[in-house]
Amino acid sequence: LQASVRALPTFAPATVAGVSLRDEILEQPEAARRQLGASEAALAGVAARLRERPVDTVVIAARGTSDHAAIYAQYLLGAVDRLAVGLATPSLTSLYGVTPRLERALVIGISQSGASPDIVGVVEAARGQGAATLAITNEPSSALAGAAEFVLDLAAGPERAVAATKTYTTSLLAIARLAAALAPASQLDGDFTRLPGWIAQSLAVEPQVEALARELAVAPGGIDRCVIVGRGFEYATAREWALKLKELAHVFADPYSAADFRHGPIALVQPGIPVLVLAPEGAPAEGQTELLHDLRDRGVDTVVVSDVAEIRTLGRWSIELPAGIPEPLRPIVSIVPAQLFAYHLTLAKGLDPEAPRNITKVTRTI
Amino acid sequence: LQASVRALPTFAPATVAGVSLRDEILEQPEAARRQLGASEAALAGVAARLRERPVDTVVIAARGTSDHAAIYAQYLLGAVDRLAVGLATPSLTSLYGVTPRLERALVIGISQSGASPDIVGVVEAARGQGAATLAITNEPSSALAGAAEFVLDLAAGPERAVAATKTYTTSLLAIARLAAALAPASQLDGDFTRLPGWIAQSLAVEPQVEALARELAVAPGGIDRCVIVGRGFEYATAREWALKLKELAHVFADPYSAADFRHGPIALVQPGIPVLVLAPEGAPAEGQTELLHDLRDRGVDTVVVSDVAEIRTLGRWSIELPAGIPEPLRPIVSIVPAQLFAYHLTLAKGLDPEAPRNITKVTRTI
Repeated sequence: LQASVRALPTFAPATVAGVSLRDEILEQPEAARRQLGASEAALAGVAARLRERPVDTVVIAARGTSDHAAIYAQYLLGAVDRLAVGLATPSLTSLYGVTPRLERALVIGISQSGASPDIVGVVEAARGQGAATLAITNEPSSALAGAAEFVLDLAAGPERAVAATKTYTTSLLAIARLAAALAPASQLDGDFTRLPGWIAQSLAVEPQVEALARELAVAPGGIDRCVIVGRGFEYATAREWALKLKELAHVFADPYSAADFRHGPIALVQPGIPVLVLAPEGAPAEGQTELLHDLRDRGVDTVVVSDVAEIRTLGRWSIELPAGIPEPLRPIVSIVPAQLFAYHLTLAKGLDPEAPRNITKVTRTI
Repeated sequence: LQASVRALPTFAPATVAGVSLRDEILEQPEAARRQLGASEAALAGVAARLRERPVDTVVIAARGTSDHAAIYAQYLLGAVDRLAVGLATPSLTSLYGVTPRLERALVIGISQSGASPDIVGVVEAARGQGAATLAITNEPSSALAGAAEFVLDLAAGPERAVAATKTYTTSLLAIARLAAALAPASQLDGDFTRLPGWIAQSLAVEPQVEALARELAVAPGGIDRCVIVGRGFEYATAREWALKLKELAHVFADPYSAADFRHGPIALVQPGIPVLVLAPEGAPAEGQTELLHDLRDRGVDTVVVSDVAEIRTLGRWSIELPAGIPEPLRPIVSIVPAQLFAYHLTLAKGLDPEAPRNITKVTRTI
């Protein structure tokens, strides 16, 4: 059995003349607009296929940032379409040569490059079994796109920075469009056209976020560890924010659902290690508010991300989100200030956001 | 909608006269023997139910340590029974009031206390839909056991330490017995009776592990951060080891599948932050060996856990596992030296393993 994990050479240089990570963060309203116009036929095709042969189960194969898009899909396709969404363990196929029975599932591969052999392997095996298969990728001519029956093009435009930003938000939007296509009565799509505007609005916090990043970078210990707590729809945001902080700013950022956090990791909390709490309006808000009170009682410094002014006052620091975004779509926006925070913290720590240590743009795990 | 996360008072005191975390770690061969004699009828019942109405999909609801048992089930039931195993998002039911369509799935709740309302809620909702339901719990009179059609009693005996150890290894063994019951031709059960002996053998490394923990505790920085890399069957071990290090020794321990590790978190690696690598014989060994070479080239200190002497020489430090354990069952053993390491590191850092900060034994998330 050939089992290996290998980082092959990068396809594109980490930086290309004039394009930076920050440019790609700021470009996200435009990228979202492009996504909204992309691959209508593929969405209709998937919906028709599932009307013909309905499924209860969705299995998603993804790695890294795309895995966080898959977590968003767990909540969104669960809540809107009542689909049980599971994350595949691609190693079962690639290392152990066994693929579970997937013929009655929709199998989705998410990969911005579409080049990761283990993700392609799951989609190929599933299609061979007769499963409905969908690729969500920024490279419609990639191996992943070739393997799947349907292809949803992210249409994010070339992403040159090593850290994924616009391919993440367009992946979430593509998933939201899929959820709407599979449940036309959901009226979810009524708000899609407002999303680019909300994303643009969320970018306005950049000066405050930059100041916060500078303050945290010079704190005792220089923020080398933190905990991030999200719940429900915003759990995906917690995971993706943590990954940005790890890969760019070298912060051991530990992301948790508030529920899992109480099961042990809360022991990590102590004064001097900040806790970043996603606490916007919605179903988890009451529990997150309780957690914020609890952390304040323990003398822990928190950064609260919320669209509710009253909740923001519970943190030592806060980041404002635009108000009025429907909870199921808000993760497409709430990650944006978090990306800006990771970017500015990286600069404030004297690191290069364009050349993260040890990473290449395309990771080909087998 | 009532949405809250709350830590209710502990049911049992953190320590009870004469019983310590270490006692419970050392008791695991006995606990495994008890598990092997428990709930035969329930296993036969689940198998008969699934012969009558076959399923392709398993959905598991679990939190904390039990979530890591669920990850083991993803690999084992996938490899042995070709079942697509997904981890539930209990918040969908408890916060958003929606449960996906599960009537054609086997739904398993894993909880040592059986008391977590959100886990009970998923199992109740699934049973209401007509799904086959199974509780895996150390409390056969708990709410979880009452909610499920079938109950697999962990029979671990009372677990008094706040950090779960013997309920984890017995959960894995219960899952392995389930995999065997659903695939009688697998011959997996042939090795079950040898497991208590292998666990006992693995405990013999305690003096070396204690010395290693002391050495790491006095290293510059005193080990406040580390990365743990496992893959395939040992990914569950990486996750559970990290949780023990967090809750007991306050180490920001970041667990990864080797595949995901290359997608960003590898940026965290630098001299002074150790990487703990699970690299026993089996399908992922080649890739893990490559990673060890790569980390050595970067000047990173590693602790290698392996049953292969040659692979152990690739690390700065190593922990020996008993040889000859079949790969699908080995996670039941490989966590044991990791538990001992977490216990001794906690002592070496001057912390109390019997009273982890901020945690209660029973966490009731809603």
